[in-house]
Amino acid sequence: MTERLLRTQGVTAPAGFRAAGIAAGIKASGALDLALVFNEGPDYTAAGVFTRNQVKAAPVLWSQQALGTGRLRAVILNSGGANACTGPGGFQDTHATAEAVAAALSQWGTDTGAIEVAVCSTGLIGDRLPMDKLGAGVLEIVHEMAGGLSGGEEAARAIMTTDTVPKQVALHHADNWTVGGMAKGAGMLAPSLATMLVVLTTDAVADAEALDAALRRAAALTFDRLDIDGSCSTNDTVLLLASGASEIVPSQQDLDRAVLLACEDLCAQLQADAEGVTKRITITVAGARTEEDALTAARLIARDSLVKTALFGSDPNWGRVLAAVGMVPFTVQHDLISVSFNGFPVCIDGMGAAGAREVDLSGADIEVLVDLQLGDARATVRTTDLSHAYVEENSAYSS
Amino acid sequence: MTERLLRTQGVTAPAGFRAAGIAAGIKASGALDLALVFNEGPDYTAAGVFTRNQVKAAPVLWSQQALGTGRLRAVILNSGGANACTGPGGFQDTHATAEAVAAALSQWGTDTGAIEVAVCSTGLIGDRLPMDKLGAGVLEIVHEMAGGLSGGEEAARAIMTTDTVPKQVALHHADNWTVGGMAKGAGMLAPSLATMLVVLTTDAVADAEALDAALRRAAALTFDRLDIDGSCSTNDTVLLLASGASEIVPSQQDLDRAVLLACEDLCAQLQADAEGVTKRITITVAGARTEEDALTAARLIARDSLVKTALFGSDPNWGRVLAAVGMVPFTVQHDLISVSFNGFPVCIDGMGAAGAREVDLSGADIEVLVDLQLGDARATVRTTDLSHAYVEENSAYSS
Repeated sequence: MTERLLRTQGVTAPAGFRAAGIAAGIKASGALDLALVFNEGPDYTAAGVFTRNQVKAAPVLWSQQALGTGRLRAVILNSGGANACTGPGGFQDTHATAEAVAAALSQWGTDTGAIEVAVCSTGLIGDRLPMDKLGAGVLEIVHEMAGGLSGGEEAARAIMTTDTVPKQVALHHADNWTVGGMAKGAGMLAPSLATMLVVLTTDAVADAEALDAALRRAAALTFDRLDIDGSCSTNDTVLLLASGASEIVPSQQDLDRAVLLACEDLCAQLQADAEGVTKRITITVAGARTEEDALTAARLIARDSLVKTALFGSDPNWGRVLAAVGMVPFTVQHDLISVSFNGFPVCIDGMGAAGAREVDLSGADIEVLVDLQLGDARATVRTTDLSHAYVEENSAYSS
Repeated sequence: MTERLLRTQGVTAPAGFRAAGIAAGIKASGALDLALVFNEGPDYTAAGVFTRNQVKAAPVLWSQQALGTGRLRAVILNSGGANACTGPGGFQDTHATAEAVAAALSQWGTDTGAIEVAVCSTGLIGDRLPMDKLGAGVLEIVHEMAGGLSGGEEAARAIMTTDTVPKQVALHHADNWTVGGMAKGAGMLAPSLATMLVVLTTDAVADAEALDAALRRAAALTFDRLDIDGSCSTNDTVLLLASGASEIVPSQQDLDRAVLLACEDLCAQLQADAEGVTKRITITVAGARTEEDALTAARLIARDSLVKTALFGSDPNWGRVLAAVGMVPFTVQHDLISVSFNGFPVCIDGMGAAGAREVDLSGADIEVLVDLQLGDARATVRTTDLSHAYVEENSAYSS
């Protein structure tokens, strides 16, 4: 390993980044609800990936536009409201927020245009944001940050909704450059009620294309394979900003690897804090003809309510895994399929193995391995169980 | 209406059918677990539709084979074990069961071949059936039925697993012919842990092709649009047997309509008794370009855990409906989408309607109407909420 990974640092670990989190009064609870990540340069290259949902929140539409230039000076993020399904007025609110951040930063000596400010929002769909509070909050957060406050952890806390802990990571490369990040949410790249927002930063020197390549590859292997409930948010956003402050130019391979490791770690933190989770479940499908087939099958199992409730009950009900596999859109051979739970074979060649009903799944981690015996490709999806707590949290979310 | 619908009668309502249900000791509880439906003729035409799951239980493979001839004398059904994922031995068990029924019926004067006996099983996947008990049960049930016992309701009770009530229907046509039926389960045609088994009978005169056409059309519009959790059983079977005993030859249109009405009613009974249900939810997507698009969208909403938990909580969280719609595999226009709950508009042209958060969804029935405003096609899917009881039942099923 040429890297050192810390969870006590986040987006401000790389040189050239400042961040802050404040309570702007968007959340009725008075909790932190507004975050700012600011790139001091000298570079301002950036890349992003966004929700695949056709119903995209205003901040997603705005930030996609902003990233058209391949550069970002700042990211402003709010919890307490998704600003989704809010019509042209909602888009104007996002635009006005970016304008306000740009104006405030410019006032403090950093000449910034609104198009250099990405906006992320998370919370209930359908309500307009309280723009008076947001406007005042923007002035305050820029003022505090410009005045010397720099709080990566406060920023990570300010984007939390149903998250119970802030999620941060910093990956220090031996060559003296760093990738930092923060995340909130509880789903896949197109996740769930808890929109996934991720901001990654690096002081490496990298152009927008290099960042884009590293981010897309990492997201496809991590966030995109974290599937809590198959639902898909209107607001998911993952951003990567580079300041170039280290003056180091890593190879694409090194950049890819560092971004992947940071994303993998944030992904594990998201899984562990997913809504109502009592089990962390890893589903691997091996022996598929293609990686895409393996991923399709793994995702289908990860989304199966009967598999997820069985595992909540620590029940080694492998028949439900087979029933889920039987619904894949490619041809499988049922009498070749084998399944193991935590390394213990429960189904061999489509039939139950001796002792299968007695496998102990009472621990918090469950590994499901399905071998289709059709080829050499494999893929892994992370998910969680379907618990009473999941039902509880999600039946009371908007009230 | 030229038909009269009763729920107090089932498969024995049409002339020419007898049925019985007994406790054969397959279920440890001692409850009824073996059912027989017997066609006395003079006709023995039959049709069937089966699970789309690639992992098919032994009785499904057998019954598909039996129906190759377009005729059936009898159906033997057991609860207490699915006989799925049981390998060649499991298939031999099914075959032996059909042989035993045929032999017992022949002994009582009805010359029957095994290939004229369909077999249905439901219960836990992966265990072999107790063939000693099943063999003795077959002898007993044929003996009792031949001796004069005819219990359509006992048969309907004997196929129950997590069902709380037996489900029967009889549709008496004004022209003096009848369609009867019984059902168990809690899912769609390719449903869930609770395999769906349905046996329909009629004393109309109809050849196998006419029965097949009527059954496929009815199943596609009813059972196939009942989607409790998106999961899909290895054992789903819907059979339709005709005795011709009424000597009436209905038009295909009349036959289609009668079979559809019977299936619709059984479907409503299945929905009302689905596992853990506290709400009966009807999702209609209108304004789609094609019926297939409408059905795809309705199914996606019906399977969304966040929509289902919100409705469990009587929470008019229409944003989750929009987020689900945004994931359809065809193009939608988010600012055209309107949603109403129980007739009350909650989202108009992609934005929240006044009073949307105050809609009262505390009743047991919720109608969700989504208008895509893209065309004239529509489709309806029935589902249920995702409740604590669902999690409870399904986390303890195999234990």
